[in-house]
Amino acid sequence: MPVAKAAKVLTNANMSQTVLKAQYAVRGAIVIRAIELQKQLKANPGSLDFEKVVMCNIGNPQELGQRPPTFARQVLAGCVYPDLLNMNLFPSDVVSRVEEILADTASRSIGAYTHSQGLPVCREKVAKFISDRDGVESNPDDIFLTDGASPGIKYVLQAAIAGPEHGCLVPIPQYPLYSGSVALLNGTMLGYELNEANGWSLDIEEADRVATEAKGKGVTPRVLVVINPGNPTGNTATPETIKDAIELAKKHNLLIMADEVYQENIYDEMRPFHSFRKVMAEMGPGYDQVELASFHSVSKGVFGECGMRGGFMELKNIDPEGKEQLYKLASIGLCSNTPGQVITSVMCNLPKPGEASYKSHTLESTNQFESLKRRAATVSEELNKIEGISTQNVAGAMYCFPQITIPAKAQEKAKERGLAPDAFYALSLLESTGICVVPGSGFGQKDGTFHFRSTILPPEDDIGNVCERLADFHESFTDDYS
Amino acid sequence: MPVAKAAKVLTNANMSQTVLKAQYAVRGAIVIRAIELQKQLKANPGSLDFEKVVMCNIGNPQELGQRPPTFARQVLAGCVYPDLLNMNLFPSDVVSRVEEILADTASRSIGAYTHSQGLPVCREKVAKFISDRDGVESNPDDIFLTDGASPGIKYVLQAAIAGPEHGCLVPIPQYPLYSGSVALLNGTMLGYELNEANGWSLDIEEADRVATEAKGKGVTPRVLVVINPGNPTGNTATPETIKDAIELAKKHNLLIMADEVYQENIYDEMRPFHSFRKVMAEMGPGYDQVELASFHSVSKGVFGECGMRGGFMELKNIDPEGKEQLYKLASIGLCSNTPGQVITSVMCNLPKPGEASYKSHTLESTNQFESLKRRAATVSEELNKIEGISTQNVAGAMYCFPQITIPAKAQEKAKERGLAPDAFYALSLLESTGICVVPGSGFGQKDGTFHFRSTILPPEDDIGNVCERLADFHESFTDDYS
Repeated sequence: MPVAKAAKVLTNANMSQTVLKAQYAVRGAIVIRAIELQKQLKANPGSLDFEKVVMCNIGNPQELGQRPPTFARQVLAGCVYPDLLNMNLFPSDVVSRVEEILADTASRSIGAYTHSQGLPVCREKVAKFISDRDGVESNPDDIFLTDGASPGIKYVLQAAIAGPEHGCLVPIPQYPLYSGSVALLNGTMLGYELNEANGWSLDIEEADRVATEAKGKGVTPRVLVVINPGNPTGNTATPETIKDAIELAKKHNLLIMADEVYQENIYDEMRPFHSFRKVMAEMGPGYDQVELASFHSVSKGVFGECGMRGGFMELKNIDPEGKEQLYKLASIGLCSNTPGQVITSVMCNLPKPGEASYKSHTLESTNQFESLKRRAATVSEELNKIEGISTQNVAGAMYCFPQITIPAKAQEKAKERGLAPDAFYALSLLESTGICVVPGSGFGQKDGTFHFRSTILPPEDDIGNVCERLADFHESFTDDYS
Repeated sequence: MPVAKAAKVLTNANMSQTVLKAQYAVRGAIVIRAIELQKQLKANPGSLDFEKVVMCNIGNPQELGQRPPTFARQVLAGCVYPDLLNMNLFPSDVVSRVEEILADTASRSIGAYTHSQGLPVCREKVAKFISDRDGVESNPDDIFLTDGASPGIKYVLQAAIAGPEHGCLVPIPQYPLYSGSVALLNGTMLGYELNEANGWSLDIEEADRVATEAKGKGVTPRVLVVINPGNPTGNTATPETIKDAIELAKKHNLLIMADEVYQENIYDEMRPFHSFRKVMAEMGPGYDQVELASFHSVSKGVFGECGMRGGFMELKNIDPEGKEQLYKLASIGLCSNTPGQVITSVMCNLPKPGEASYKSHTLESTNQFESLKRRAATVSEELNKIEGISTQNVAGAMYCFPQITIPAKAQEKAKERGLAPDAFYALSLLESTGICVVPGSGFGQKDGTFHFRSTILPPEDDIGNVCERLADFHESFTDDYS
């Protein structure tokens, strides 16, 4: 009944057009197709040329077999069901952490809404973790515990970007939470290209040029997003680059959003993690007016606890008026989930030398980290062997973002099908091998170049095979369209 | 440095003005003051005229001593730490539910991001629960598991309300998530007053009048919000009223948002819960184009698992185009927290007769329910004894919303202090008794009337005392300003 449909509120024609415009490729059309193929294989094994779909579209370690952190899970189980504490099941450091958390609730239960910024005891652990990491004090009152890192990012963007007259400087390529959120706010995306040839390093001159150009067009740049370590690029920023970024923010009155969720995923020892807040503190008192919001999460690192939706935002140099409004935005959703708060507090308060779980936890997390590091190396090595694919070293995070050569005929074919060339490539890869990656166009890329993002997360006994199948596919795809 | 502050992004002058405009009284200024008083009492017991702050501002049962549901917590503990299953700790129906959930994950862990609508097995339980409740089929593909009910409500509003030209019909008084979200979207709030004299019943003629008037002013009404059982009013809607609301939606092409999070909290047996989807199905095929989104949560009912942030949205008659966009909005936050998904699935799949936990769970939840029912009765009885306070019967939900007489002199005093009269009243109540309620102005009320919302949640051995102190306060407040 076309007449009836025309009257509906939620159709493409009638709904809010900013919603229609927003894109989020990490869970976009190719991933929806991958889920269909998974269902088909479950219902009808053997019906496709491959046995399973390998989800390399998203940094979701436990989906690909990574085991959850035992210590964190024990603490959470104790908080969920405190009767377990009387059964002599858990090491003493698990029990003490559970007791400390329960003591901070009104009725020894994590089933109540907490303060909208999170339980004080959990925020104290986070602040201590940050202070110890940087040697620069952090205040629990400036911490917001959130469901993963995403909600904090949305709160800040919502407060900062009021419409098309406001610009958000976002690296290209970027994580599409930023472009998607800016589109929902009807703001202006100001993409600044990273330097691929230099390992996807931050190009501050380019960001400055983009900011200045925007001003000339009547758009006020308000926010500078930096993702360090880089998603999807795997780059890690040097202190010098971070300093330049802070200078740029000062020059243009930009609020810095430092997306540091991959801070533990550093594989190149020559390039350790430096937080924006630490570098800013080292720059001295002239920078105490540069607004900074930093983000971290339990989804990455060695925890990989994506499903728990735990994370935090820390505010620095934010005016009390601004903080009050960010609190209000958080309070409209009441509070973040308490299991996520618990896991976040554990990530920030790991077993210490002498504590009962210290050895076992350290062994578990070292093994986990070393495995990620080996896989990061394997993926870049193997992909670089393939003619027509070249990738930068994966220095950090969980992704590689290789550049790919797509033959002209394949580009034509893509156009016929209404797809970006790299979307066509990724879809063909999925349909013939079951490997699900995200096309570079979902993150942004220099015009005329093509990429895809793949995680480094398939299990070690499988990752060689995944790379091999990718190589075979690339060869036959190139042949088919040459 | 005023110059530097002026340049900041997040100040009242510079930030997005829609954010500044949005209000959320449930966690507003009075609650912030209550938290300060709590801190003061913790640091310095005996420093105030009361021993503790009683948080009646929010439906947060476990903060006031309600115990969490044992069965649900056992299932969650098992999902969090599956090693517990080998220890012969849990009844067989707990084990079978844990096994069923873990079997639906890729690696027997709830630590992975799930499908953006939630784990299929959990959505199946929700759909079965809805189908059994209504005798009208529900499809797991139409279910979105969310962090409490709030995110689903935000997704629908975001898609439906693009700007001031779009109106959202919201009951007055209402739960401020609606007014707050509409303000953030820069949409137009269209308040329709409920009928206080008739137990806060839905007044569909009034809603029709408001919708028609809006159209005359160039505002297209797009959404009809109904909260049933009512928050903050405690009203429960009759099938006839629901039918009228659906007719109204059909007439004006409105998408119905049915906020049914208090569906288990029904204390008046003569007025059982009827879902919008059930009544709509009974109205026959002429209504299969009326768009409906229904919401439920684990935060209320007898679970009271607010901190777990579990809930769901079910879509009915939403066009596939609209559903695709709601999915995209959900996917930008990746997925809801898995512990919340687990608790939601348990709420929808309770122990059945013959299962190991059936008796103990039924006893526990019956006791819980009967206690809530007694407290609902106590609160309305006791408050109605106070001269200058009159409240409708609490037929459902967790709140009473009494009308209060505020002397003219107190109204003047409030004006001097820049407060709404009922905000001044609530603040005075807090400062002298420690009882924290929310002023009616935070929910909306008929001009010239004053109310407050209080939960019925203080423990049974305390609730008489709370009412008594409220009565004393009201008397002396009235005396002071007469």
